[in-house]
Amino acid sequence: MVVGLVETAVPTAKSTISSVVKKPTFLSSDPIINVARGDPTIYEPYWKKMGDRCKVVIAGDEFMSYFCNTMNLCWFLLPELDNAIRTLHRVVGNAMVDDDRFIIVGNGSTQLFHALLYALSSPDLPEPINVVAAAPFYSSYPEETKFLRSKLYKWAGDANCYDKDEPYIEVVTSPNNPDGSIRGTVVNREGGKAIHDLAYYWPQYAPITSKADHDAMLFTFSKATGHAGTRIGWAIVKDKVIAAKIVKFIEVSSIGVSREAQLRAAKILGVIADDCRNLDLKGENFFEYGRRLMSERWGKLRELGMKSNGLFSLPKYPRDYCKFTGEYTDSNPAFAWLKSNEVLNCENLLRDESKIITRGGPSFGVDSTYTRVSMLSRDVEFELLLERLAAIKGTVNGN
Amino acid sequence: MVVGLVETAVPTAKSTISSVVKKPTFLSSDPIINVARGDPTIYEPYWKKMGDRCKVVIAGDEFMSYFCNTMNLCWFLLPELDNAIRTLHRVVGNAMVDDDRFIIVGNGSTQLFHALLYALSSPDLPEPINVVAAAPFYSSYPEETKFLRSKLYKWAGDANCYDKDEPYIEVVTSPNNPDGSIRGTVVNREGGKAIHDLAYYWPQYAPITSKADHDAMLFTFSKATGHAGTRIGWAIVKDKVIAAKIVKFIEVSSIGVSREAQLRAAKILGVIADDCRNLDLKGENFFEYGRRLMSERWGKLRELGMKSNGLFSLPKYPRDYCKFTGEYTDSNPAFAWLKSNEVLNCENLLRDESKIITRGGPSFGVDSTYTRVSMLSRDVEFELLLERLAAIKGTVNGN
Repeated sequence: MVVGLVETAVPTAKSTISSVVKKPTFLSSDPIINVARGDPTIYEPYWKKMGDRCKVVIAGDEFMSYFCNTMNLCWFLLPELDNAIRTLHRVVGNAMVDDDRFIIVGNGSTQLFHALLYALSSPDLPEPINVVAAAPFYSSYPEETKFLRSKLYKWAGDANCYDKDEPYIEVVTSPNNPDGSIRGTVVNREGGKAIHDLAYYWPQYAPITSKADHDAMLFTFSKATGHAGTRIGWAIVKDKVIAAKIVKFIEVSSIGVSREAQLRAAKILGVIADDCRNLDLKGENFFEYGRRLMSERWGKLRELGMKSNGLFSLPKYPRDYCKFTGEYTDSNPAFAWLKSNEVLNCENLLRDESKIITRGGPSFGVDSTYTRVSMLSRDVEFELLLERLAAIKGTVNGN
Repeated sequence: MVVGLVETAVPTAKSTISSVVKKPTFLSSDPIINVARGDPTIYEPYWKKMGDRCKVVIAGDEFMSYFCNTMNLCWFLLPELDNAIRTLHRVVGNAMVDDDRFIIVGNGSTQLFHALLYALSSPDLPEPINVVAAAPFYSSYPEETKFLRSKLYKWAGDANCYDKDEPYIEVVTSPNNPDGSIRGTVVNREGGKAIHDLAYYWPQYAPITSKADHDAMLFTFSKATGHAGTRIGWAIVKDKVIAAKIVKFIEVSSIGVSREAQLRAAKILGVIADDCRNLDLKGENFFEYGRRLMSERWGKLRELGMKSNGLFSLPKYPRDYCKFTGEYTDSNPAFAWLKSNEVLNCENLLRDESKIITRGGPSFGVDSTYTRVSMLSRDVEFELLLERLAAIKGTVNGN
């Protein structure tokens, strides 16, 4: 039986609990459940149900040129996608997209994160600019910042501990990955720059309390709708010089972004916006559907937490008034930020005890009692995850 | 009237001929012809004619996961594209694609060039590795190598002048961009590494004399079929460790490559391969069509050269036996590498005299008597280019 993403081998990190666990609760034939990555397959049934409405058809002679719109600063942005992005943000009310804001498309928001590091740094500075984020931070930021060993920027760790009197860029993820908290900048020094990663600021994950209006904001199609394979992200930027540097980065690193991917994103974002505005819609719009699903999953997980006699704990989130739904709503983050109250290494516990692959605290800049569990898997995988978690008994003592 | 890519403004580089030209041969209302970039719109009519055979249809719930094939080293490569690439190379005979070769897809071969710099360099070396290419070299290599100021690699200029006793990567483009010459490595020192950019090693541009069989080869959908907007390139790599590093680069920089783009590339490459193998095909296969078109354009350009009384000269290419077509064929490069015999700055001459935007020699590491002219524009633009070139009279004296 294959469930979700089956790894070819269990990672070989040393277990800290294997010596005290006598009988693992899984059979060797049980499948590994990999919820380490936030693969957003949860929404597949919704899009299947949408049938032809979201279908795109591309003829053999379409999109041959490098250029989409030479009159636009972002010359590789499909005008239909520009429109769809602005329309959806206006309908949802989660970001300011007035006409003077620049929208730049990227190969996922990952490429745009790199582009923003480039755009916000300067070859004229004597030292690389410091890049910080408050822990727990998204596990990919350090690697993305470090891997090319650029002289333009360098990773400087937890923003909460940042005390240098030097130029810096603070990355703010809100709602935060991994812990779902609502965040703002923490360093707040004059001249500091910020990248606001708003990948999860959509109604299914958190109440929409106001239009985000920062200098540089990132969104991604992957987490908004679940289309991770399409690799579409966008930046919303106030300053024209910064926008032009982002465009330059995308040009030099990949000469733009697949037109096919952009067309599909435009189509799907357009359908969502239409449905949100259509008061006669039979059934739920995408965000209502997503919110119901996420809320159900969080309900089940929290119920399990109550039964687990304090083995694990989960963060609590304040209710807030969501302007999109017009009611007070809960946060239902894309990840469960699990803290083990009894063992030192939560990632290893889940892997060794239950064949559940998660991403441990140290990847996010905190200790290993924490681990991140994706809440976005397919139903069958999520149910199995719950079953496995429920089966973890008190066979493990603290170590 | 708008022809091809209309720029919003003529570049402001200083003219070296404006002082001696009394009467430009163009009217201010004439459109600018931009043939600076190799935008391959020449093939549009062919793909239009193909109609439904190359159409792709994508439903709303397809390609939602980040993962294409977790059993493959390149986990974001669509198996259909892997198959289509290998099949086409086997049919054309232009590259070795035995099963032990790794194929890695990228957001255009541009992203894969960056990935190869990363894969072939080492954080353990005390100094950045030198990256060289024999002039005239593709104008983007220096910028792509330099722009992030990596400590892993640095641009070290013309391979013909490279005399350092240090590790190096030589980039070999064959047929060469800009001048269409067939090339091999020139440095040839022990331990030297090479990237073979074979973007133009297809039957419409050059005779296919043997299966290329280098350690690291790059190809791109843009130049093979003309679908530049799709942003699909691929690397063919012998060594598993290098392949894994390329995959890692693509993961960290963009978490893979658009599935929609890959599906479309797979479809179109598949149709081409089918047609090449179909001896009962009515009409031409894509490469026959492309070769006829390119050959006609080169014939017209050379004819014009003969009439121009020595104002310009073009490279000459040897005929060679093409194993794909089974006959001796000419090279018909994607760019005309124009040398002015009378003025010092050929790019400025064409811009000021004829409103033709090209890319001058200095971008390619050589002097400004040279300029690069795309041969891949749409028909209407190419005809206008010929007209304008023909109209350049002896009003310009050497300066």
